Amino acid sequence: MKINKNWIVGFTDGEGCFYVGINKSDDLKTGYQVLPEFRIVQHKRDIKLLYAIKDFFGHGVVVPNKSSGPDIYEYRVRNFQSLYSVVVPFFESNELLTTKKFNFLRFRDIILIMKRQEHLTEVDLNQIIEITKKMNQDIRDLD
Amino acid sequence: MKINKNWIVGFTDGEGCFYVGINKSDDLKTGYQVLPEFRIVQHKRDIKLLYAIKDFFGHGVVVPNKSSGPDIYEYRVRNFQSLYSVVVPFFESNELLTTKKFNFLRFRDIILIMKRQEHLTEVDLNQIIEITKKMNQDIRDLD
Repeated sequence: MKINKNWIVGFTDGEGCFYVGINKSDDLKTGYQVLPEFRIVQHKRDIKLLYAIKDFFGHGVVVPNKSSGPDIYEYRVRNFQSLYSVVVPFFESNELLTTKKFNFLRFRDIILIMKRQEHLTEVDLNQIIEITKKMNQDIRDLD
Repeated sequence: MKINKNWIVGFTDGEGCFYVGINKSDDLKTGYQVLPEFRIVQHKRDIKLLYAIKDFFGHGVVVPNKSSGPDIYEYRVRNFQSLYSVVVPFFESNELLTTKKFNFLRFRDIILIMKRQEHLTEVDLNQIIEITKKMNQDIRDLD
């Protein structure tokens, strides 16, 4: 498969997702865990392509996306170091052309806040929560 | 917008559609009109991108896609000469990486049958109908 960076940008403009989950966690000081994630979801008929994308980035995993159905898979990067050192720099150098780029820029902001220190403070967490709200707001504002 | 051919292939792998409509038409000898179409559907927030894709190909139109909702638009090529001389050669030279390429190859077969003569015969029409059935079958067989 002849994957190259411009194809990756185009396919991500169509199918990619930059998502930040914020889950309750009693183990953490702030009471919440922040889970940023880059993913591309496809039907299993294109699972080979998901593995080719994984090879392209050299990071991430291909796993079932059970919530979307029995034949749906996703290429996913959750490892923080992979997001910080590979995924974010890639989409900084190779800009998305759809309005999905606004979501990416917010996603990057969150990754940079998380990078500043190992454990998030309450202030960091509130800042991240505000940004995740804006991630959706950016898109709505354009409607 | 820095659109290039690899981005177009990636975005089409995600969002593009090769479709062949077969509609009743009493004006035609076979009783049916064959309408091949290439389209990319997007929310209006990315309408500028649809116009940039139109500029890239130098053919086609950007119009509302009313059946999908009030804020949905599509870049669409229906003109036969544009499909034959621009869209099909483009995706022959720049191969799709998803299984959507099987649909494209069937689509191309139909375009070539239509190119052979100005007015389709009953035999041509039946052949086209069989191919359109396979366009969907190809995908199901991979499930």
